[in-house]
Amino acid sequence: MPSQITQICQQARKVSVTLASLDKESKDRLLRKMAQKVKEQQAEITAANQTDLKHAQVLVEAGEMSPVLLSRLALPPHKIDQLVGYLEGVAQLEDPVGRTQYAMTLDDGLDLIRVTCPLGVLAVLFESRPEVVIQVSALCLKSGNAVILKGGSEAAQSNRVLFSLINEVLVEEGLEGAVALIETRQDVAEILTEEENLDLIIPRGSNAFVRYIQEHTKIPVLGHSEGICNLYIDGNVDQAMAVGVAIDSKTDYPSACNAIENLLFDQACEGPLVEAVLKGLQAVGVRLKACPVTRDRFPGLKIEAATEEDFHTEYGDLTLSVKTVSGLEEAIEFINKHGSHHTDSILTKDKHKAELFMTRVDSACVFHNSSTRFSDGFVFGLGAEVGISTNKTHARGPVGLEGLVIYKYLLKGKGQVRAVYSGPKAKRFLHLPLPY
Amino acid sequence: MPSQITQICQQARKVSVTLASLDKESKDRLLRKMAQKVKEQQAEITAANQTDLKHAQVLVEAGEMSPVLLSRLALPPHKIDQLVGYLEGVAQLEDPVGRTQYAMTLDDGLDLIRVTCPLGVLAVLFESRPEVVIQVSALCLKSGNAVILKGGSEAAQSNRVLFSLINEVLVEEGLEGAVALIETRQDVAEILTEEENLDLIIPRGSNAFVRYIQEHTKIPVLGHSEGICNLYIDGNVDQAMAVGVAIDSKTDYPSACNAIENLLFDQACEGPLVEAVLKGLQAVGVRLKACPVTRDRFPGLKIEAATEEDFHTEYGDLTLSVKTVSGLEEAIEFINKHGSHHTDSILTKDKHKAELFMTRVDSACVFHNSSTRFSDGFVFGLGAEVGISTNKTHARGPVGLEGLVIYKYLLKGKGQVRAVYSGPKAKRFLHLPLPY
Repeated sequence: MPSQITQICQQARKVSVTLASLDKESKDRLLRKMAQKVKEQQAEITAANQTDLKHAQVLVEAGEMSPVLLSRLALPPHKIDQLVGYLEGVAQLEDPVGRTQYAMTLDDGLDLIRVTCPLGVLAVLFESRPEVVIQVSALCLKSGNAVILKGGSEAAQSNRVLFSLINEVLVEEGLEGAVALIETRQDVAEILTEEENLDLIIPRGSNAFVRYIQEHTKIPVLGHSEGICNLYIDGNVDQAMAVGVAIDSKTDYPSACNAIENLLFDQACEGPLVEAVLKGLQAVGVRLKACPVTRDRFPGLKIEAATEEDFHTEYGDLTLSVKTVSGLEEAIEFINKHGSHHTDSILTKDKHKAELFMTRVDSACVFHNSSTRFSDGFVFGLGAEVGISTNKTHARGPVGLEGLVIYKYLLKGKGQVRAVYSGPKAKRFLHLPLPY
Repeated sequence: MPSQITQICQQARKVSVTLASLDKESKDRLLRKMAQKVKEQQAEITAANQTDLKHAQVLVEAGEMSPVLLSRLALPPHKIDQLVGYLEGVAQLEDPVGRTQYAMTLDDGLDLIRVTCPLGVLAVLFESRPEVVIQVSALCLKSGNAVILKGGSEAAQSNRVLFSLINEVLVEEGLEGAVALIETRQDVAEILTEEENLDLIIPRGSNAFVRYIQEHTKIPVLGHSEGICNLYIDGNVDQAMAVGVAIDSKTDYPSACNAIENLLFDQACEGPLVEAVLKGLQAVGVRLKACPVTRDRFPGLKIEAATEEDFHTEYGDLTLSVKTVSGLEEAIEFINKHGSHHTDSILTKDKHKAELFMTRVDSACVFHNSSTRFSDGFVFGLGAEVGISTNKTHARGPVGLEGLVIYKYLLKGKGQVRAVYSGPKAKRFLHLPLPY
């Protein structure tokens, strides 16, 4: 008798076969029905969320939970309305499945096409924000995937009521099990061994959590643990731009994964430029830690000494490591070594240097004359984001629906056999590209 | 002091940064120089290969090596000539790097593009055939990747002389270390832990070898272990086609990964049809193992009983498992459960059934009315093949140069900051798609 988790995964695998051949209209109907139910069940959702919030409030007062989590947990009416809009928006997106990527006539009456198809079964593991239940289910169903969700325990009641309305729709449409909700850490540990039934795991949460998942499964994992982003300021740069972009990259949302942790100055940067940037950062409350060269240059500024470890650290707050480098080459080397291959930016008027930086920095997002904070699926116009990946394979950077599909090769023939195309009298393949 | 393997990997990582910004001309020059050196060093290559062959001959005579390996090991003059042509052919392929995949104006003067880029550093582990040293190096360099090669020990001398000529070219071009050759099993074991320096491992060889690699590393692995392909014959089918495709799928190259191991008949298939296919297979020497239903139907044919295990077995020879299924749904379920998600084919005149089969069978290649043997990068017109993948992420099916690249997002601005686009007076993004 398979365990309960294995049964959930097997059922997801089974229904994923049906999901793979649903047309756009059927998938979008699921999403519109979900939107309708969110509207209808607003009171139940609010009540469940209130229960979670009360429980969390007790934990916050006991010092066992960060007060920041409360705001993430809350589902006030305007957020519930947004969920309705979100579902209708995803329904309007193009179908990511069934897109032709390659088409070729191999021989008369032997046509090959490569089309996008769902991955199959995903597991998405997240924390705190209950609206993720709806958002992720919508993206997975739109892309024809089954999904197993694990939310934060602090949002248990909210998650259940949202899952329950999704499940009502799935049962109505004969797709029960296409979305499943699991709840405990033990469940997560079991999920990690379901190689047969799961195709991709997307963990969202703390660095430690993501790293734990990456290290404990053979199933492909999409995501990022650290977000150590870097800003490199070349000597040939507009001072006001340097000050503005440095401050924005650090302070616009310091705990975001696309905020910078390291600031590099080219040694050719003139004193007033560097001083303006550093003073500007300090003026908005940034605590600076710097290399000896930078500190010696500005003994008047209160700058702490940075350790080698500091340059590998994701502070997630208003602390920033600063280093003076000998030039572009050292900057690139530093970033490839210390960064987390997430988002890095160069500020320079020199287009050639910018181009070298952009091709040689080995990161998902590499920017020229702009803040690292632009690194985001919505900002990029991807329509929807399931996460940001620092993987080198499959999907990189902000990942939209496209990251939830793969492709298959379909060959349509008239009974052709391979033997005819080999040997001394081999027939030759035509290899004529087909329009698509 | 890092180990020798770590040093090799670190050097590969270092030179990969330079490779990432090489233009097409520079990369193609490497390939043409390699072609020239293969021509010039034909005598040295032949001599080294003779040494390997003599050594292998002794092992074969002692019963310690399969005679099949001898032909794979041999590099006669026409094969050396083919290598020259191969290198020149790869030089003529389009550059897989720097292709724009997405382009959007986020706001005035803030343009985002997504371009293909190399993965970084690959390890390719293969057996026997020394020409793979040249073929794989060519594909990796063309796609801007550094590569660490491990060939079969039986081809050690041939591999060394081929690697040495590649290295001569790389040294001349200031790219030493872009291709490295490792030789021992211990080296391979060390490679598997080089997560920092390696981006992808491509193992080619026996099922057991590929599975060993997959199970012993956290680095992404591209490839396939088993090749359990299936052919399903619907009741509504042309008999001559069924006989022809079944025989070709099984016997054209029985040890190939795209040869079938399971043959499924719909229960609606008429007796004479099934009998013709089974007799046809037996006539060309195929040994049949079948389910009770099939055996009971044709007691006159000498058919052994198949076990459940047989339907999960890659025979790699002229043995074939046969099963009668109740219909399309059971066929799809059987294939998704017993197959290895490599290549599966349906024979039917019913287009609707064919379409359901093609969307619901969860395999890299799904065919209609054609032999499974067409599943191959050259046949598909991909130009070159680095292997066949049964992964669900990144690259699936026959993998060409495209599987050796990923992409990065490049944002070019004029000093824009994110803060302007949030809050009550938020500026809106334009999100205007750019032509590319």
